[in-house]
Order: sequence, then structure tokens, then C-alpha cells
Amino acid sequence: TMSSVNKSAHAFDKVRLDSLLNRRFFYAPAFEIYGGVAGLYDYGPAGSSLQANIIAEWRKHFIIEEHMLELDTTIMTPAPVFETSGHVARFADWMVKDTKTGDVLRADHLVKGVLEARLRGDKEARGEIQGPVVEDPKKRKKKGAVEAQKAVKLEDSAVKEYEYILAKLDDYTGPELGDLLTKHTITNPDTSNPVSAPIPFNLMFASSIGPTGQHPGFLRPETAQGHFTNFARLLDFNNGKIPFASAQVGRAFRNEISPRAGLLRVREFTMAEIEHFVDPDDKSHPRFPEIKDVELSLLDKHTQSSGQTTIRTMTLGDAVSQGVIANETLAYFLARISAFLLKIGIHSDKLRFRQHMANEMAHYATDCWDAEIFNHQAGGWTECVGCADRAAYDLSVHAKKTGAPLIVREALREPIVEEKLGAEWKKKELGKAFRGDAAEITKAVDALNEQALVTVQEALEKGSYEVTLASGNKVQLTKEYLSIEKKTIKTSIREYTPNVIEPSFGLGRIMYALLEHSFWAREADIERGVLSLPPLVAPTKVLIVPLSAKEEFVPLVKEVSQKLRRAGIFSNVDDSNTSIGKRYARNDELGTPFGVTLDFASVKNGTMTLRERDTTDQLIGPIDDVIAVVADLVQGNLEWPEACGKLKKYDGVQDA
Amino acid sequence: TMSSVNKSAHAFDKVRLDSLLNRRFFYAPAFEIYGGVAGLYDYGPAGSSLQANIIAEWRKHFIIEEHMLELDTTIMTPAPVFETSGHVARFADWMVKDTKTGDVLRADHLVKGVLEARLRGDKEARGEIQGPVVEDPKKRKKKGAVEAQKAVKLEDSAVKEYEYILAKLDDYTGPELGDLLTKHTITNPDTSNPVSAPIPFNLMFASSIGPTGQHPGFLRPETAQGHFTNFARLLDFNNGKIPFASAQVGRAFRNEISPRAGLLRVREFTMAEIEHFVDPDDKSHPRFPEIKDVELSLLDKHTQSSGQTTIRTMTLGDAVSQGVIANETLAYFLARISAFLLKIGIHSDKLRFRQHMANEMAHYATDCWDAEIFNHQAGGWTECVGCADRAAYDLSVHAKKTGAPLIVREALREPIVEEKLGAEWKKKELGKAFRGDAAEITKAVDALNEQALVTVQEALEKGSYEVTLASGNKVQLTKEYLSIEKKTIKTSIREYTPNVIEPSFGLGRIMYALLEHSFWAREADIERGVLSLPPLVAPTKVLIVPLSAKEEFVPLVKEVSQKLRRAGIFSNVDDSNTSIGKRYARNDELGTPFGVTLDFASVKNGTMTLRERDTTDQLIGPIDDVIAVVADLVQGNLEWPEACGKLKKYDGVQDA
Repeated sequence: TMSSVNKSAHAFDKVRLDSLLNRRFFYAPAFEIYGGVAGLYDYGPAGSSLQANIIAEWRKHFIIEEHMLELDTTIMTPAPVFETSGHVARFADWMVKDTKTGDVLRADHLVKGVLEARLRGDKEARGEIQGPVVEDPKKRKKKGAVEAQKAVKLEDSAVKEYEYILAKLDDYTGPELGDLLTKHTITNPDTSNPVSAPIPFNLMFASSIGPTGQHPGFLRPETAQGHFTNFARLLDFNNGKIPFASAQVGRAFRNEISPRAGLLRVREFTMAEIEHFVDPDDKSHPRFPEIKDVELSLLDKHTQSSGQTTIRTMTLGDAVSQGVIANETLAYFLARISAFLLKIGIHSDKLRFRQHMANEMAHYATDCWDAEIFNHQAGGWTECVGCADRAAYDLSVHAKKTGAPLIVREALREPIVEEKLGAEWKKKELGKAFRGDAAEITKAVDALNEQALVTVQEALEKGSYEVTLASGNKVQLTKEYLSIEKKTIKTSIREYTPNVIEPSFGLGRIMYALLEHSFWAREADIERGVLSLPPLVAPTKVLIVPLSAKEEFVPLVKEVSQKLRRAGIFSNVDDSNTSIGKRYARNDELGTPFGVTLDFASVKNGTMTLRERDTTDQLIGPIDDVIAVVADLVQGNLEWPEACGKLKKYDGVQDA
Repeated sequence: TMSSVNKSAHAFDKVRLDSLLNRRFFYAPAFEIYGGVAGLYDYGPAGSSLQANIIAEWRKHFIIEEHMLELDTTIMTPAPVFETSGHVARFADWMVKDTKTGDVLRADHLVKGVLEARLRGDKEARGEIQGPVVEDPKKRKKKGAVEAQKAVKLEDSAVKEYEYILAKLDDYTGPELGDLLTKHTITNPDTSNPVSAPIPFNLMFASSIGPTGQHPGFLRPETAQGHFTNFARLLDFNNGKIPFASAQVGRAFRNEISPRAGLLRVREFTMAEIEHFVDPDDKSHPRFPEIKDVELSLLDKHTQSSGQTTIRTMTLGDAVSQGVIANETLAYFLARISAFLLKIGIHSDKLRFRQHMANEMAHYATDCWDAEIFNHQAGGWTECVGCADRAAYDLSVHAKKTGAPLIVREALREPIVEEKLGAEWKKKELGKAFRGDAAEITKAVDALNEQALVTVQEALEKGSYEVTLASGNKVQLTKEYLSIEKKTIKTSIREYTPNVIEPSFGLGRIMYALLEHSFWAREADIERGVLSLPPLVAPTKVLIVPLSAKEEFVPLVKEVSQKLRRAGIFSNVDDSNTSIGKRYARNDELGTPFGVTLDFASVKNGTMTLRERDTTDQLIGPIDDVIAVVADLVQGNLEWPEACGKLKKYDGVQDA
């Protein structure tokens, strides 16, 4: 029988988690020996490996399972691309400056921090919560834009107003944020100085390409434009058919105004993006029936706009049929996103999907939902995946700017036959009379729509129709040169710009949230932190622990390593000169789910013990049997309780 | 029996290869619809997948096999890091400007292009080669820095001099390149205008970090500094022991002056780097015996400095013992690099290792070898992997700049006991007399070396020793405060800065060379290009070809897909409405090594055929038998000739 484990014996302790992540080099501030740079982090061996496993699963779950077309496009991007996409004009956050020190703060974060502090102060004054422990003021300052919490009771109406503002915070424009700062006399909490009106700050890192400095460029703030500019090639690769999706995992950069939230808000990050190209007239999804009964926690835009944050749990079938989610394809991706996050270990009760409100969403978008994950770093919910229906915006603007035909041409099953007005030209006469201008004249008239052609027809009946050439010269056309007649037009091709549904993943945020959700401490000893990472993503799957580094264990360690490798399982050996218990404790911190111990019994009897991280239960059996069980466990074909039925329980003392 | 294949029936045709790579979207100019940007390329589905497979094999071959510590560090780097490393001052190429048009050219490429053209012109004049086909002059201009080849005979001495210059081209400094330009009257071949003297152009892309613009930053031109700045953490992760290696795969950026050689010289690229930290006093390698008999093609520095390019084939054992390669660890990595390149499909006769010459190598480096691969794009050999012994340079400069202890502390097996002079302080008297200055005084004297202490001793004997404080005040020390005495010093810890051996891979260059080496055309039809990529790296391993897209084949296609996936094999289905032969030909272009055909016999008898790409041979058997053979083939446990003994030969007509 399996031991029961109490993972919530100790309250979540962020200080201990941060210490573990730093000490075991999951990640650390980049260029730390140079004092570091805000918003830049390096991943060490444990973090790199965890990230690589998350990416590998992402590739399987999305690219392979859904036959997406993978891309790897450049980060450095010439300015015209982002001028067209709108990023140069609009990819900005609102910042304010401390009017005395010149310190820069992000306007919405300032409003949020101050109002939340006031609400906490109010609760304290009302005796609803305990006041905060008085902190070292130096430390306080470092923590930044949070007004010192004072136990001051607020008017009931103020409480209500603050809660309303916080619920729809993402929906305010820059000037509106400025109004809030003034109305609620919000100052820089670090200095109590007033702040300037919000001004936009473009978040793209700028550089220039080539030795002459003539070609301005930006580091991409998302991978999406690399998909859109390659659309025609991708469509061709897919034999001209849609729907299809492209996918890309890569670095992106945002020059955040004041990054202070660990991995949640960084200046350089790895993201994974999908652009699913779909017929604008048909956003159904063939696999929707498979997910229609999946229930998600939804926070829709109407709820938020009314100042509420109540979550509704509903099936995706209901959400689409009731118009909460715009279409089947969007809903299908929300289900897939949820399945992916749960599979890698995100806790289901800390996952919700929040819909963008009207101002928050780009004007062209039809609908947008964020997968938000609860975490203590943010003290709330953080957007980790965005999923937007961007309509035809991106392809349209690039096509318009470059003239590239970013469209789908589809053979119609039945050609459409229409009666339409059209010009019948007398080419010979036209050529004689107008020579080189003839082509321009025909082009101008042929481009006219039905209604305009009626006007031409009437003008010709009355005498002549005047065309103005590019040169400014005016030309009089008469019936001598053309007539306007009803024509039968047969269309057998439909041309259209596809719509784009874009799921976009911030991998660093997801990884950090996963680390929080995985962290706990042993009931008997708060110092013994454990990361309960699922085997699927754990950096190391199996720790091999020989009793000692002595010669006699070397061949056995080699044998077990090789057998695990052949079974496709990544293992590590810890033969350091310390107790087996300590070695296991050290690897609990790294999230290693299984351990096998090689001791004198192994040498003598060919057995080894198998230890599970969370329960610390141990089983024992012949080496090959244990490896077979481990392989099933790691590949997800077996859960630990079942494994306990397959091997004998071991009551040794290694894991003291 | 297996069919024989003549892969060299047609001469290598770069135009056809380029067309294939572009048409099938292995890669294409980035932002092509915006006119593109020199030196930036996007990888499409085929290229992304090929690259991903090369990286996966690299990880296995190096990181997993050698237990390296993986890192993922930031691209954006604050300027002080590159000031310390020397990149701000020295990471530059020499450029010249066309004195009339202002066009910018890279000085060494200009010299190379012009001298090579003159040598070809000389050969033509001597009747040794045919003249070039006259090209469209517009096209010529695009191709850039190559002087139009004219059939002009040169003096024998000039031929010799040009050949000498070309052999040691990488060894010239900027001013020396300037001298060559003048001496040989080299002008811009596009315009025939004179060019300016060479000036250095720093290749790093600059940007600035944060909203105030105060923090200049650069995009890393290599990943190495991210390893060095994290050295202390890595050493700690490795329990304080060396040797160990860190490894990283990631993007790097170089603002090339005039990139014109496809994937060989780009402004943004993916690289894979290893930093192997080793004891400077012991660069032996435990696995050297495993590779000492491996033979490599070597072009050493002495050969090149004497103006020759003769390659010597020697074993690594001989190369190290004869001092051709500096040490075992360097030689071990050369062997591993060679094994990796051959495994992914680089042709062994197109691989050589070239040693850097004195000027070419950084002054601190001990030895440096490039793995060079022959290719037609370069019309010669291209550096694809560098492997340098960088000594203690990097860690030393960062430690000096930041004060961080980037050192190894190693317990000595036997403590070293030495007799040394040292100061014996009379602390009480010193404190009374000098108060707050006492600490500064003791520190100053304690820091003196043996020889200086002798001087102090003599001065004290004569009366007093003068110490100058930071304040400028002078202090007279007498025997009242200290004496200099022989002391027994026991050292049980050895402290040292490790040396670094750095293998650094340019993955895009390797991928391009591999594509060239893999490309050929069917003997019977030059239009039928094939990419003979090894199964290990081929984007798709198996193509599933149902006779048609009809309903009746759907369950079978699904079954075969699932069985292949379960066997860990990535497959693709081509059910397009075209002949089976055409579908295979299309996938020969993508390098897909195997194909299985599902037809009426499959539905009826449960058999399928298996087709091999290079021979186009086909075998037939029960579906499960074929899948078992395919799995062995893809995993490299079986070669095609052996597979032919395991399944029946099929003489059908699908592959007409």
C-alpha cells in the first residue's frame, strides 16, 4: 500500500521556493556578477532542461498531433514590417515619471499597486485582516511601486470604486489612467512625489542593420509577423489548402518599463506561437465534437465590464452555442491549451480563461481569451497564454503594403454565374484616337463598379463621358470607343483573405507558475522542499544512487545507466560522498521523480530499490523488472499506486 | 538484391539545388515580400525540422553522452560585459568604401575575390581552363565583389605571390590588407572605382536597455560570455569539481558588412557552443585512448604560413605526441566533432581541420582548429566549427573586472608546507599608536611578497619602515609594532583559474553544407532531384502513400500512422490527387528516406510495400513486419541491404 502524503502541511513559502530555485540554479539574474540587469534571466541546467521538456511536449501536443507547419524566422526585423503591422505606432505601455527623481513607473502597475494597498489598509482598519509585519524600509523601497500600507478606513463608496477600477484595469486608455492618477491623488510610493501624465513608451528594442546605419530594425516582440510574411509560401507548402496552422518556438524581446516580477515580466523570453489560418466564413472545427463537453473556468468580458470577477464553469459546447466564445475553432484551441497546461502539471484550480474587454482588445480582433494562472509572485492571476481571433487584419495590411497576394484561391464546387454590366471596347478606334493613353483609359473604366458603370452608360447616351488621366489631361469618351452592356460573368474561383486564430504561449511564465504549483515541504521538516514535477517534464527522470563511489559499484551503475538510456529515459548518477537520504533530498529539490539505489544486495542478488519522490515509498525487485516499471512510469503508462502492486515493498533504511 | 545507384551521373548543379531549397521552403530570404534583407533567412517546415533534428542529435552526441551542463542565457547583453571580454574594442571586420559610390565592401573578401578572378583569367589565357559563359551584366553586378574575369596572363612571379596571399589571407591585419589593395591596385569590381583604406567595423548589433536609454546593450555575437559569467554557479552545480563542460544552443547576431553567401554568412544564426573547463596543468582526457587511432585530415599552421594548403592525414595520437595539436582534450573534441558531422551526413572527403595561424588566433589562445567543410557556395572550404583552447583568458578578465572569484578551489591530497617570511604584529601597540589606520597598515604590509619583506626587515633593523597610506599620509613603523619572521605556512587548498576549451558550431553553415553533400539527380532524369539525408536527420522519416484519398483507405492510413508514432517514428501522409510516382518524387526532394504504399492489396491482405529513397527499391510484407523493419532502419539498427533480406522484393509499378 502507498503512503499518504500531506503536501499542504506547511503554507506556501515563496521565500523558500525562491531560495531553492536560485541555489539549485533553475534560473538566476543574467550577468549577476556585473550587478545584473532588470528583466534578464539565465536558465541553469535544471531550468534549461525543464524548459526543453516543456517545449518538447508542446511540439508533440500541438505541432505533431495537429500536423502544424513549423517555422524558424528571424528575430531582427526591418522597421517597415512593424510599421505595417502597427507595432511602431502602437506597441507601447503608458509610463509616468516621478516629477522630482525622474524615476520611471508603469502607469497601470502604479494604479494597481496603490489601490490594492489602500484596500488592504481599509480591511486592516476594519479589523478584517492583520496588518503587515513592519519591514526593513530599505527592503520596502526595493520592492517598488506599492504604497506603504496604512490602516486607514475608506468610505464604502471608495472601496466599491477601487474594486471596480481594479476589475477593469486592463480596459483603461493612457489618458484615462492619467485621470485616475489625478482623481485618486496617486503619487510615487517610493518617494511620495507626484508623477507626470502618462506618456506612451514603445516596447520594441531598436537597432540598425548593416554597416551604414541606414536600415532601422527592431527585435521582434512576438514571432507572429514571421508567420504572416511567409503566408504565401506556407499555403503553397500545404498544397494551397486551408485551414492549416504554422507554429514557432523562439525568442522575443520587450523593453519593459520597469520589470520587477521575476520570470513573469522579463525583457527577453521564449515564446511558442501558433497561427491557425481559417476560412472567415467557416470557423467550425472538425475536432470540436471531441472537446465540446470539456468544462473550463471562464471569466467573460461582460462580467468584468460590470466590475465583477465571478468565474463561470461551463462546457465549451455551451460557451459556443450561447455566444460566450466566438467560434468553434477558438474554443477548440482553448481546450487544447487547457489540456496542455494540465498535462505538464499546472493545477486545474489555479487556471482560468479570461476574455478581453472591448478597449483591451485590438479593434480588428473578433474575440480574445487569456489562459491565466494563479501564482503568489503576482499575488493573483497572470496571463500565460493568449488566444485571439485576429480576423484578417495581419494578412490584409501586409498584402496592402507589399502587393503580395496573401490570399487563398479556392475552386468553387459550382461556378457562380451573374449578369453584370461591363464595357465593350472598340479597340481599334480607341487605339487610333488615344495611342499610348488607351491602356490607362480601359483600365480606369474596367475598374468601375456596377453603379458607376450605370453613370457611364447614361453619360454616353447623352454624348460623352470624361476620364481624367494620371497626367491630369482629360479625355472625352463617346460611343465611338465603347458601349456599356450586360454581360454574363462566370466565377469559378473564390478569392479571400483567411482569418487567423492565434494561441500564443509565454513559456517562462508557464514554467514559473508550474514551479510554484509543484513546490511543497515535507510535513516533518519544513526545510525539506520538494518539487513535484510530473515525470513528463522533470529535468531528470531517474536518479541512480550507488551506496558509494567505490570500484565495486561502477559496472552496475554503468549497466543500469545504459539500460535506462536504451529505454529512452534520462538518468543521472549521484555518487557523491554523502548519505543516500541526503542525496535523495537534494534531488527532491530538482524534482527528480524516481530513484534507484544500488547497494551490496544489488551486487549479490541483482536487485535494486525504486523510490518515489512524493511518498518516499520504496519498492524492490530484480534490476530488469524495476527498469520495466520505471519505463512505464516515466512514459505515463503506469501510476505509482499501480506500480506498488507490481514490485515488493521495501522497508530498508536508505531514505532515513 | 539491391539496385545500384549512380549518384554522380550528373555534375553537381547549384542552380537546381537552390531552386529546390527555395521551392520546397527549406529556407527563404526573411521578409521576402518586403524585398528581403541581406543576411537574414527564415526556415520553412522542411528546414526547421532538419535543423531541429540536427540539434537533437547534437544534444545526444555532446550534452547527454558527455554529461554536460546545459544553459540558456540571454541574447541581450549589457555593454560592460563585452567591454571586459574585448568585443567592444576588437570584434570587428575591416571594411573599405568605394570612394565614389560609398558602397561598403569587406576588405579580405575583396582581396580574395579579385585575386582569384585574376588567377582564373591567367589560367584561361594559358589555355588551362575554359572562359566563363558570358553572363547578363545585371546579374553579375548582383553577385558582387568578384572582379570580372578577363583572360590576362600574369607573370609567373605574380601567380606565385597571389597564391601565397590567398593561402595566408586570414592572417593579415587591417593595415596589411590596405597595403595589398594598394600594391595590387585592387578596385571595387562592381564600379572599378578605387576604395578607401580599410577601417574596422564592429560586428555587434547595438541597442539600449530600459526606458531611459541609459544602458547600452549589444546582441551577443556568440553564446560564450553567458557561460563564463555563470561559471561560479556551474561549478557549484557540479559540486565544485572540474573538468566539466557547459553547453548551449541559441541565437547569435553579427552585423556582417556585406553578407552575400546564402546561409554561409548571415546576420542572425543558431549556434551550439561548449565551454569545457579544465585544469591548466592537466589537459589530458580520460577518453583520449578511445579516439587516439581516429585519423583526421589536418592542415596545420606551419603549412599555411609557408603558403601551402597540403593536407596531412594523421591519427590524433600522432598529432598530439608530435605537438601538431596542443593537447589531448583539444584532440578529443576534434574527434567528437568529426564523428558528429559524419553521423549527420557530411561527406568525409569534404571535411578537414585547419589550424589557425599566429595573427589569426587571439593572442591569449594556445591553439585553435576549425572544422572546415567543402562546398560549392563558397567555392572552397568554409569554417563550420571552431575549436579553440582559450586558456584562462575569459574567466580571468571577468574576475578581474567584477571581483567575482571565478576560480576552482581544490583540496590538495598532501598539504604543501613552506617556510616563508611574514609580519608578526604587536596589535595592541599598533592600535594605540595608529587607531583607525591600523587595519590599512597591516593590510599593506601583509600583501608584500617575500622579497619586499626582506627590505622591510632590513629597514626595521636600521630603524624604521615607511608606509604611505591612501590618504597620502606617511607612517613610520618600528620594531615596537612588528617584526618580520620566518613562518611555517601550510597550504591545503590549491586555487586556480581553469582553462577553457571551446568547440563552437555554426548550425546554419553545417546544414547548408549537408544539403549540398546530399543533393544529386536521378541518372535517367536530371529534373528528378534527390536529397539523400540520413534517416537520423531527415525532416520526415516515412511517407505514407495511400493509393487515393478514398474513404476505404482512411482506417488503414490511421492505423499505420499510429503504429509508426508508437514506434517513435515521425511520418507524413500524402493523399493528394496525383500519381504515386509523383508523390514519391516530391518527397525525394524533401529527403524522406522511406515510403509505404497502401493499396487494395493492403486492404485485402494486410500487406504494404516499403520503398527506399535512393535505390527506389521496393519490398513488401505484412504491415507489422514492415513497420518493424522501418523502425530498425530509422533507428540505425539496420541498413537497407540487410532489410532487403528481411522482406520480399516487390516488383509493382507504383514508382514508375
